[in-house]
Amino acid sequence: MRAVQDSMDVLSGKWKIAIISSICYYNKRRFSDILDDIDGISNKMLSKELKELELNKLVKRTVLDSQPVTVQYELTEHGKTLQTIINNLTEWGIKHRKEILGK
Amino acid sequence: MRAVQDSMDVLSGKWKIAIISSICYYNKRRFSDILDDIDGISNKMLSKELKELELNKLVKRTVLDSQPVTVQYELTEHGKTLQTIINNLTEWGIKHRKEILGK
Repeated sequence: MRAVQDSMDVLSGKWKIAIISSICYYNKRRFSDILDDIDGISNKMLSKELKELELNKLVKRTVLDSQPVTVQYELTEHGKTLQTIINNLTEWGIKHRKEILGK
Repeated sequence: MRAVQDSMDVLSGKWKIAIISSICYYNKRRFSDILDDIDGISNKMLSKELKELELNKLVKRTVLDSQPVTVQYELTEHGKTLQTIINNLTEWGIKHRKEILGK
């Protein structure tokens, strides 16, 4: 029971899954690009969410020595294991929608 | 993206997964027994959550002609497909806890 809740805590909230999907799709992704990928998220909120994902060891943050300085994110090995979960949730969500709308 | 969110909406909240797990474990489960299974849930809240699960076609409600009248719940075929998802989330939650606590 507690384990399920741990997973749900990591994934819940309005933005987490969108952020993970954006980084995962592009492999490596800059802060400003993630900001562009996700409709409606603010600079501040993205920053906060990424910090949480970093604390949860799901994403790795790298500061690139470019001009201007850019910050890049990628999934950790642990973060990549989330992909199966997200895929399963996607498949089930599609089935569920069909079931509710009567196919 | 929307599909993932659909799944998360169905499963999120404090009680949904606990209720589904209780019914699933016992196959058929009476309202009063589910109430006993889940620490801290109120009569009113359980009633509300079960109604939502019924609307989502995940549980089936049967009124038994006993004395006193009892209400029994079971998972629908669609509800049973959730079990894989819950198992996956459980496994990942265990892995995640190990990762965070450093094994």
